[in-house]
Formats: sequence, structure tokens, C-alpha cells
Amino acid sequence: MYEKILKAAERLEGIVHKTPVMTSTLLNEITGNQIYLKCENFQRVGAFKFRGAYNAISSLSPEIRKKGIVVFSSGNHAMATALTCKILNVPATVIMPEDAPMVKVAATKGYGATVISYNRNSESREKIAEELVEQYGYTLIPPFDAEEILAGQGTVAKELIEEAGELDYLFVPCGGGGLLSGCAVSTKHLLPKCKVIGVEPCLSDDATISFKTGVLHRAESANSIADGLNTPSLGKITFPLIREYADDFVTVSENEILTTMYYLWTRLKIVAEPSGVVGLAAAFHQKLSLENKKIGVVISGGNVDVKEVGNLFDSIPDLHSKT
Amino acid sequence: MYEKILKAAERLEGIVHKTPVMTSTLLNEITGNQIYLKCENFQRVGAFKFRGAYNAISSLSPEIRKKGIVVFSSGNHAMATALTCKILNVPATVIMPEDAPMVKVAATKGYGATVISYNRNSESREKIAEELVEQYGYTLIPPFDAEEILAGQGTVAKELIEEAGELDYLFVPCGGGGLLSGCAVSTKHLLPKCKVIGVEPCLSDDATISFKTGVLHRAESANSIADGLNTPSLGKITFPLIREYADDFVTVSENEILTTMYYLWTRLKIVAEPSGVVGLAAAFHQKLSLENKKIGVVISGGNVDVKEVGNLFDSIPDLHSKT
Repeated sequence: MYEKILKAAERLEGIVHKTPVMTSTLLNEITGNQIYLKCENFQRVGAFKFRGAYNAISSLSPEIRKKGIVVFSSGNHAMATALTCKILNVPATVIMPEDAPMVKVAATKGYGATVISYNRNSESREKIAEELVEQYGYTLIPPFDAEEILAGQGTVAKELIEEAGELDYLFVPCGGGGLLSGCAVSTKHLLPKCKVIGVEPCLSDDATISFKTGVLHRAESANSIADGLNTPSLGKITFPLIREYADDFVTVSENEILTTMYYLWTRLKIVAEPSGVVGLAAAFHQKLSLENKKIGVVISGGNVDVKEVGNLFDSIPDLHSKT
Repeated sequence: MYEKILKAAERLEGIVHKTPVMTSTLLNEITGNQIYLKCENFQRVGAFKFRGAYNAISSLSPEIRKKGIVVFSSGNHAMATALTCKILNVPATVIMPEDAPMVKVAATKGYGATVISYNRNSESREKIAEELVEQYGYTLIPPFDAEEILAGQGTVAKELIEEAGELDYLFVPCGGGGLLSGCAVSTKHLLPKCKVIGVEPCLSDDATISFKTGVLHRAESANSIADGLNTPSLGKITFPLIREYADDFVTVSENEILTTMYYLWTRLKIVAEPSGVVGLAAAFHQKLSLENKKIGVVISGGNVDVKEVGNLFDSIPDLHSKT
């Protein structure tokens, strides 16, 4: 699998942003560890998803690409695919729910993709996609459960380790497990002793249960503020990889997610979305009681409505800001 | 003067954050130029001010340091001095107005400084400082008008140029002129052909007038949302340096400042304060009608109350987010 990540890194060279690894003296003091933040919120389209989408689509043959791509997504995967298709000059169709955030619909259209709306309650996005595949010969690009997708996401940990060096731990947000499985494979190849920890919201802990029991667990209506992680379950490809390469899972509460997000915005001046900060929330709130460790953390995305953030933060006590 | 900047760079090595230089494909497309953002909002205490304060205080003799430091400031200079004094183990007294932002007062105290409050309307901070200097032998560290301060700030442009290489233009926010004069000296030494542009809010354009007329202009009650730039005038040291080394000044409106700030938060995921974004506002709103140029921009700080930002952005039309 690591060869696929190396190949992905070649394809992505000069296309993705080599996002910065950020550190904070105060964050180190507070946690008693050395924290290295790999900031994929600064990635193109504002999330790591661009890596997987670009890798998957650019690995298709010219004949297949020419026929076009279809995806279903209400968010980051839609934008990632649309931008990839714009760059590679591939026709893109994106199936989005009628109630998807306006800014994301507009961005997806802005990249030149055709957007098809559907009603979440009365229609099946899978069925719409299937019909398009049959009718037009489109290729469906899944959001996480495909080797080329997770190979693209695995370049996140590869870049982090190349910059930060030896790490004792790596904390990675987990939804469908594309980012976590890819990063776990990279990490175990480059730093076999580094422990890879998947992080989920308590309200959406299906992957934690799957990992611990060894039986794929499904949770249909998870409702965490970390909306990108409300995926019902790990995938057929990501689940066994995570069982093999990840070391443990921890969960964080809604309040821990918001507190961490507020800290990042206020002290580190980084706009990250709730889903993007759960890895740091685990380190920040000492879910593993670590001390004097070098800890890598993936900040996975930053797509959040900044006009609405004041409301999210209202319940958090003021920080006495010092960075 | 450039030797002082080199000396400052040595003193600051390993103490300041080497802040990232960020780029954005979309920002380049929108402006028709290549933009390199030097992100001093990611600096310790959230602003470039830490460079000058640390350079100035660490250049004092041990005997003078031992007696203690005094500054007056309601914001970033207070925190920058307090953190420096904590690191160097120097007693610090900070004179802050009674109505200074609570978070900044708390941060300043948090770094171990003694805070003295005064009433803006009935008391003179200069007089309070003078008395402390006489009584205790403290050394007053001015916010911008001192060689070691502006030499510290000049390391910002030095680092930017070392990372980004050749630049055609550099846009720098201007309040008292410490950052602009230091950066202009560095830039003209390293890249003599690069044009250095000072940027001010229209509502606080004293330096623009001073630069263009050659006569130091004072404006007492400027009231821009870019509060860090409401300084009444350039200083005795910064004014002649700016006349000699800067090439031009431009001004930006309040709405241009807010629009740019919203763009940075939404698309680039960077928390910057109004004062911090005026340089980018000038590039973004094409104040000099440039095309196909390499433009360096200093984002000078990020200290803003994120709970209040929704209100600031309410009047800005939604962006169709794509990064």
C-alpha cells in the first residue's frame, strides 16, 4: 500500500499545497508535549480531500476520464472533485442534497461542475449516481473507500513526518477512515514505533466501536457538530487497514471540540472547522495522559461559515489570549 | 541601518517564530499577480511587535535590564514587552488605559508584568512613565520610534525575501512606521529594485500626507477599524527612514479592509485583525493597477476577538468559497 502513497505523492507534487507544520510554545506548555500541527485547512478547497480526489481522478486513463466523473457529497469531497476536474479538464457531475450549504454548492459550480440536487428524504443519491453511470459511462469517485483516495490522503502524514522528523504519536480525525487509513500506512512505514490514534466525536463513535470489537459497526444518524465525521461507518477497504495499522481510538465531547476550535482561532490564528480539530482536541484534553512526547496532529479542514462562528463560541469562556 | 537588522536577526534566532509565507492560487487569479503573504499573525503574541520588543530589550546591558522596563500600550506592544521580559527575566511595568481590552490586560499580567491602569481623559501616560523612570530607574521602551525596535521589525521583510526570492513590490501596513521603516531598509538592501509601498486606512492617512508633503503630519483622533494604525504620526526616527527607503503610499477604505479580512478568514483560513490586512487590501483592491508582478505582503497581526467577528462581517456579502 505504501507504494501507492509514494506514487500519489509524485502525482500531487506541484498540484497540492505543501501545507505548513505549525507549532506553539504555549500549546506545548499547556499539554506538556511537543505538538506539530499539519494544517490541511490551508490545503486547496480548504481540506485534505483534494489530495485523494486528485490522486484518484488523475490515475484514471484518458479514455475513462473523457467520459466524465460523478460524485455525491454535500461538502468537501464535492469541491475537491470539482477543482480536480477543472484542473484536469474532465467533465464533473456532483449530486448534492437540496439543503447543502449554499457556499459549497456555489463553489462546486464555480469550478465548472454540473450540480444535480436531490431530496434527502425522498430520493437516493446512490440510485441517481448509478443511473448516470449506466446512462453516460461516468466513473463514480467514492469519498473515502477506494485505494487511490486513501493513498492521496496518506501523503498528509508523509509530508508531516518529513518535516517534523521522529514522532511518538499521531492523532488523526476519523470519519469514513480515508485520512486515517492512509496516514496510518505512511506512518507505520516511515516510523514503525509511532502510535497512530484515530479520533472521533463521542456522538459519532462508530469507528471506535468497530476498531475495538473487530466487527464493522454502523451508526446512521450521528449528529456531532463535527459534521464531516458523521459518516455512518468505516469502509470495506478502510476498516481492515485501520485494524492493521492504527494503534488505538479515543473520543472527544462536543464541548471539547468547541473549546479546542476556539483556542486554535484565538491563540494560533488558524480557522479550522469542528471536524478538523478533533485530533487536537484529543491531545489538548489529554485523552491519553501523555507527557514529554512528540505528537503529530492532523488539522484536517477549515470550511466553516465565519459569520456564524460567534454563535458557536458563545458558550465558551473567554481565553486570556497569549500566544 | 541594515547591520542593525542583521544583528537583530541573530538575537531573534530560535526565539521568534519563523512565520510561514503563504500563497493562494485563487488569490493570484483574482489579482492577476503572484502574492506572497508573510504571516506575522502567527508570530508569538499574535503580531510582529514581539520582534522589535525582544530585540530592543535584549540589546540592553544586564545592569540596565536588572532595574526594569516600562512601556505604555493598550495592546500588542504591551504583550510583546511582557513576554520578552518573562523570557529574559526582566521586571516589566506596563501602563495600560482603564478601557484596554480585558484579554490583552489579562495576557500582559499572565506573562508576569505589573500593570498600572490610568484614565485616558484625566491622566497622561507619558507623565506616569516619566515618574517611574525617575523614581525606579526603569528604561522606557517606545512602541516604534527607536532603532532597535525597527531593526527587529525589519527582520520580517528579510525572512520573506529569503523565502520568496525576488519581489517586484512589497506592501506593508503603516501606523507609527516601525514595521514599514525596518522592512523598507531590509528590502532596499536585499532587492534594490523592489518597490516598497506603505499602506494606511483612508481614515488614518497621516503618514501618507507626511510622506507626500515631506512635512510630518499629525492626526490626533483617527478612528479606523484598523485600531493598531490609529497612531497620531510617524516618529522622529521612522519618518526620515520612510522618506528615504519607501517608494509610495496608498490608502484603503474601511469596507476594503473588512472585505479583505473576510476573504482571508474564509478562503485562506487565516485569522488576521483589521490592522493586519491593510497591506493585502491594497493588493486585493488593485490600488496600483499591477499585473503579473511578484508582490510580497506583510500580514502584521491577528489579535481580534473571534466572538465579535460575526458582527464585523455582517455587512459583507457572502463569498462563494473556493480556495
